[in-house]
Amino acid sequence: MIRAVVWGENVHEQTNETVASIYPKGMHTCIADALNEDPAINATTATLQDPEHGLPQDRLDESDVLLWWGHAAHGAVSDVVVDRVANAVWSGMGLILLHSAHFSKIFKRLMGTPCSLTWREAGERERIWVTAPGHPIAEGLANHFELEHEEMYGEPFHVPEPLETVFVSWFQGGEVLRSGLTYRRGAGNIFYFQPGHETYPTYYDENIRLVLKNAVRWANPKSGRLKDIDAAPNRTVANALEPIEERGPKLHADNEDGFR
Amino acid sequence: MIRAVVWGENVHEQTNETVASIYPKGMHTCIADALNEDPAINATTATLQDPEHGLPQDRLDESDVLLWWGHAAHGAVSDVVVDRVANAVWSGMGLILLHSAHFSKIFKRLMGTPCSLTWREAGERERIWVTAPGHPIAEGLANHFELEHEEMYGEPFHVPEPLETVFVSWFQGGEVLRSGLTYRRGAGNIFYFQPGHETYPTYYDENIRLVLKNAVRWANPKSGRLKDIDAAPNRTVANALEPIEERGPKLHADNEDGFR
Amino acid sequence: MIRAVVWGENVHEQTNETVASIYPKGMHTCIADALNEDPAINATTATLQDPEHGLPQDRLDESDVLLWWGHAAHGAVSDVVVDRVANAVWSGMGLILLHSAHFSKIFKRLMGTPCSLTWREAGERERIWVTAPGHPIAEGLANHFELEHEEMYGEPFHVPEPLETVFVSWFQGGEVLRSGLTYRRGAGNIFYFQPGHETYPTYYDENIRLVLKNAVRWANPKSGRLKDIDAAPNRTVANALEPIEERGPKLHADNEDGFR
Amino acid sequence: MIRAVVWGENVHEQTNETVASIYPKGMHTCIADALNEDPAINATTATLQDPEHGLPQDRLDESDVLLWWGHAAHGAVSDVVVDRVANAVWSGMGLILLHSAHFSKIFKRLMGTPCSLTWREAGERERIWVTAPGHPIAEGLANHFELEHEEMYGEPFHVPEPLETVFVSWFQGGEVLRSGLTYRRGAGNIFYFQPGHETYPTYYDENIRLVLKNAVRWANPKSGRLKDIDAAPNRTVANALEPIEERGPKLHADNEDGFR
Repeated sequence: MIRAVVWGENVHEQTNETVASIYPKGMHTCIADALNEDPAINATTATLQDPEHGLPQDRLDESDVLLWWGHAAHGAVSDVVVDRVANAVWSGMGLILLHSAHFSKIFKRLMGTPCSLTWREAGERERIWVTAPGHPIAEGLANHFELEHEEMYGEPFHVPEPLETVFVSWFQGGEVLRSGLTYRRGAGNIFYFQPGHETYPTYYDENIRLVLKNAVRWANPKSGRLKDIDAAPNRTVANALEPIEERGPKLHADNEDGFR
Repeated sequence: MIRAVVWGENVHEQTNETVASIYPKGMHTCIADALNEDPAINATTATLQDPEHGLPQDRLDESDVLLWWGHAAHGAVSDVVVDRVANAVWSGMGLILLHSAHFSKIFKRLMGTPCSLTWREAGERERIWVTAPGHPIAEGLANHFELEHEEMYGEPFHVPEPLETVFVSWFQGGEVLRSGLTYRRGAGNIFYFQPGHETYPTYYDENIRLVLKNAVRWANPKSGRLKDIDAAPNRTVANALEPIEERGPKLHADNEDGFR
Repeated sequence: MIRAVVWGENVHEQTNETVASIYPKGMHTCIADALNEDPAINATTATLQDPEHGLPQDRLDESDVLLWWGHAAHGAVSDVVVDRVANAVWSGMGLILLHSAHFSKIFKRLMGTPCSLTWREAGERERIWVTAPGHPIAEGLANHFELEHEEMYGEPFHVPEPLETVFVSWFQGGEVLRSGLTYRRGAGNIFYFQPGHETYPTYYDENIRLVLKNAVRWANPKSGRLKDIDAAPNRTVANALEPIEERGPKLHADNEDGFR
Repeated sequence: MIRAVVWGENVHEQTNETVASIYPKGMHTCIADALNEDPAINATTATLQDPEHGLPQDRLDESDVLLWWGHAAHGAVSDVVVDRVANAVWSGMGLILLHSAHFSKIFKRLMGTPCSLTWREAGERERIWVTAPGHPIAEGLANHFELEHEEMYGEPFHVPEPLETVFVSWFQGGEVLRSGLTYRRGAGNIFYFQPGHETYPTYYDENIRLVLKNAVRWANPKSGRLKDIDAAPNRTVANALEPIEERGPKLHADNEDGFR
């Protein structure tokens, strides 16, 4: 059973009538419901308003994949939690960034780039093309599908070159976006997926729900968590794998910690 | 003329007799001298001890490539300067990370990973193999070269999969390292190069000096600096590239800033 | 159940006493036995000497992953079978190339490069380092393992930059090799893995057997086979996804085949 | 001076009135004229109809970058010449594939995939977006530009994941294409660029001409040609870089050629 946690900012659902009417139980609940359609996935939710944003260390330790939707309140997310999530990803937890999470602290932290793009909120048509046929995240999709209403997110999208470009989107107003991108950071699989503006019913779309389920299966770590990925162990001469003699001047005593 | 700045931490040169005797004018000066052997490069230096670490905004604006050597004092580097350098890289400035700069704030910021590895200071032999023959950074090298004394840095090296693996190193004690790696972050070219422990005369080695000169030429931006790479412009319906009509509910007024 | 086929050249087993004594039932049988230790895998074998080399179209259609070991008789493999295997890979069949299969027709066909490297048959020690911790192919391994006797294969290894470098090997005589590399070609996952010289008992090693089982699970396609990946369909104006009018001069009649 | 050769199939210029009227001296001549606007480039031409298609070995030996435009007569290109070009690329010659050259023998040979895509010849609008700002091939471009009439080429485009995706195109009829892709094969830089249908005046467009000039500068090898990239040298025990003793059984005598 894959243990997924859907993190939702849960702000516009409380403050905007349109969003509240589309997602009365919150976007995070709708997304978790989609995942729970898959018998291999057990999805729960967490929100910004929960203590520690619902992501204490022991919960991350027992989660396989975290999905992140945020928009209006990126700045309200605690840096301590961001560090904690980054460490969990490095040790193997999967992470799926949804829509406006392109500007979340955690995505920018893991990418090392501004993650900026252009945008327009006009309810225009988006057509999502599969550019990596056979990729597990595209399993069961036709070679393209459409969303009649989405927010335009356009290139240039300032992210690192991905491992694989899984989707590229066409927008009615003339833009394109590399809208499904995979990365690995440490042992953790990362997927950015662009659709999901809160004023449209995107997370009720069957193709979108399929992509989310596929992505959770793909991001699920195959091994246990890596320990001490942040350590920098000193392999001393005495413990060297091949016999060597110490030569030349040195700074460090044996088994001393290195500088950071 | 390529404007290169060699940034040196300049700590062990002041505090350790061995380092001071090998690099009496500082490692940064030795590296800059190597670069200035190339008539296409004009290299100057900056150190931790300079005001703003020698890297005020106007100097970064007028630099094409920054080389970074740090070890004992990563934590003493100002976060303001780190942000400034990251922005310069995103806009197109090249960045070359040398040896223990794998643990510098700026490298970790741009990679989004711990950048940890294993190490041993035993003066052992390192043999550097070219794994991307024909890459500009390897121009003029044989398919391998040796350093009789280097610090071992070993796998696993927790960095993102690079654009290209240019060098892989063999160590006498039994380890290997992907020792020359290229990345792009925003418009900036980045190269990590492992040799250069301060207690050995690595930066006097002719092959090492050639790699540094090649790397500066490779990292040199071909275009002017990108502006506003961190901006997220709203392309309104009125200004859309293709005629579209606004449809459906929306959150934002036209020309409003997006959330961050 | 993952349907794996282990293809063995089966030449030295018949002609060389050493090889025959280590692998009395053939290397392919030893490898298939290793895979069949995994209850999720059903591995069978095929050899050069079988009709159509044991790889008729209907067998490929019903195989999920093909493993390929060849050395002395690359030239004896029929081009018809090579084309057939390439097409199966493009449509989604996984392919794992073992040791001297770096020079097989099928690997060179799929890589588009010479796939050459340096070599030495001296029974020296090889130490295999994991460079992608958390990758499914490295599941259950320590961060390195050793083979006391292997053939040296050394850089430069003339292959394309991989999707991910999973292993890098250290050799006693001073060389290194990127010894575990992943690729995708069409919908098919490809893994090259260097150990496996026929005069050593490599395929009895527990770590090697674990890597092979992991690699089969990783290469196993998650979707059904892609159809017509080689087709170039004409999407006519009448069938366009967005309404457009035909404009300007043209070469082709509607629904005409394109040039090849 | 960069020595560029523009290879043109030169068939439709002879047989189709529209093409002949747009490109009276042939598409190859128009492209070469564009390149020769750059004082650093010396471009000449070669065609299918020339002896050895204008590409004898000595000409390839003295060329830095080859540009390839073909469409109706891919099958008429000699396999001997294709092999020769592949070898030149592996040794360092740059190669730029234009438009319908996606189905050329040389591109399929170097990619190892079908290189298929969808298409429509309707004179529709194409908008080319820069997805790698700061890449040398995009130097001097705005973040997008338009061609009022182009042939649609659409995803899925069955090529390997590139080193970098430089351009993604939007088409009026609803499709997208990764339209500018970089690869390295051996020491040779490769760029595929989609625009250039023969019934439209694409190669007179200033942005297109700029991309071509940039691409030639980018693909130009920085080093001399690699020798013997196809060799597989035996590094004997006697010549090993580190002292080792021969151990265990072996197949080969010293300095014997390996199998192929």
